[in-house]
Amino acid sequence: MKLTLECLPCLLRQSLEATRLTTLDAGHEQAIMDAALACLSDYKRYATSPQLARAIHRRIQQLTGSADPYREMKLTHIQAALDLYDQARARVMASDNPLLTAVKAAAAGNLIDAAIYADIEIGQAILDRLDQPMAICDLDALSERLRDAKTILIIGDNAGESVFDRLLAEQLHPAAVYYAVKSQPIINDATLEDARLSGLESCTRLIESGCDSPGTILEDITPEFADLLWHADIVISKGQGNYEGLSDVPRDMFFLLKAKCPLVAGHFGVPLGSDIFRYQAKPA
Amino acid sequence: MKLTLECLPCLLRQSLEATRLTTLDAGHEQAIMDAALACLSDYKRYATSPQLARAIHRRIQQLTGSADPYREMKLTHIQAALDLYDQARARVMASDNPLLTAVKAAAAGNLIDAAIYADIEIGQAILDRLDQPMAICDLDALSERLRDAKTILIIGDNAGESVFDRLLAEQLHPAAVYYAVKSQPIINDATLEDARLSGLESCTRLIESGCDSPGTILEDITPEFADLLWHADIVISKGQGNYEGLSDVPRDMFFLLKAKCPLVAGHFGVPLGSDIFRYQAKPA
Repeated sequence: MKLTLECLPCLLRQSLEATRLTTLDAGHEQAIMDAALACLSDYKRYATSPQLARAIHRRIQQLTGSADPYREMKLTHIQAALDLYDQARARVMASDNPLLTAVKAAAAGNLIDAAIYADIEIGQAILDRLDQPMAICDLDALSERLRDAKTILIIGDNAGESVFDRLLAEQLHPAAVYYAVKSQPIINDATLEDARLSGLESCTRLIESGCDSPGTILEDITPEFADLLWHADIVISKGQGNYEGLSDVPRDMFFLLKAKCPLVAGHFGVPLGSDIFRYQAKPA
Repeated sequence: MKLTLECLPCLLRQSLEATRLTTLDAGHEQAIMDAALACLSDYKRYATSPQLARAIHRRIQQLTGSADPYREMKLTHIQAALDLYDQARARVMASDNPLLTAVKAAAAGNLIDAAIYADIEIGQAILDRLDQPMAICDLDALSERLRDAKTILIIGDNAGESVFDRLLAEQLHPAAVYYAVKSQPIINDATLEDARLSGLESCTRLIESGCDSPGTILEDITPEFADLLWHADIVISKGQGNYEGLSDVPRDMFFLLKAKCPLVAGHFGVPLGSDIFRYQAKPA
């Protein structure tokens, strides 16, 4: 999915958020925003939004000396998710269709980062989603492929929602489930440490993707990740950033995400904010 | 109220909106956004958000040849408001406190521009607001000053909500009510023509403020507007843009607005989206 002009105001808002997380000094904030605006003005150099975001956040990291401005926020999100985990797991286990409920939980977990700032009653909102239909849910395609699947790759997204991805991973056994995280901190995406704190080691094999952008960029991936991306029996890509980077790659894939921007919602033909689990066949 | 870094992503989003309204050519869109980003990067030259917004939108007007990109949108908003006017007026007339209900209507009218895009059932949302308490409502201060008031200045905001301002103006009689509009089109702010289409000539004397920014900038005002601003018995400033320009001027004033941005909401100590009618005494 290509970078569009609609990405620019969003990326600038995100730059300001990162700036505010790293400094309290007004003059320094201006200097960082000046640098972010300079990167942003150069948007034509970048093919996708995650690539431009990476350039901006690298610059912010350089100027603030903070390699992980979102560290505290991520820990808060992971703890909030862990506090909900037992309840959510009980709902999955008691469900008529545990696989479906686990897919819903893995999508709903994405509410955490939106919710904490918008002052939503996050716990209830996430649990409520487990009873609601998803806007798109290609569950049959997953069930069918699960029968013969030996290796499965989940490409993770944010810290916090990572906790709910455990519920999904457990439903995918006995296949070997690999869970890919970012190789370096970028915004609130999960890293290896975040995945461990989320408890994902108990049910997946953790790997780094090689990427340090808020989305998978093929140029950056490690040989191990590439091997899984191309040869795993099932690939489940989580979140908007990974969709933006992977929507055009030549293999079949499941995209599991909340449509947080009007363009992505438009791509899927669903209302903004919808939960989506879409099977995309290998492009012809 | 000073320009802050928080204004920048918002102004960029608004620039894109104006760009999309004026051209369908992708290359031209990029050229306009490049110019908007160049203006935005120069943000330290501007004291307030309306001043920076004016600079950006003047540049967009230059590059597109469109003096009024929002013309059609404004007409749609005015018509939507006119369709609601009789119902809203009946509610004011039947109210136990018509002045209060009219104040609420003048604030709720500001929902129109948000609503049309967010797909809210706008008519019902506006009418519902007439029964709800405002977050801040200094009605007693208005009632008290109305007893002796001979001249009143309402400083208008958007086209569309202008229709609901008629309800307020009628409640302010028998004082002479002046209604100020922008001298040139800027975003979706009401101009003389918009005010006429809104029916405001029937109950106010229309004047131009001299401004062509989304907010009142003292350097630009006409002698006639200045005379009213400083000597009218009551001044009611509508909307965020006028608040940003007038919050520090040395006279007492009523601010009637919806808090659409976190900073303005923070200034008033109310949740985002609140309706506010605040009497501000002359600063010491």
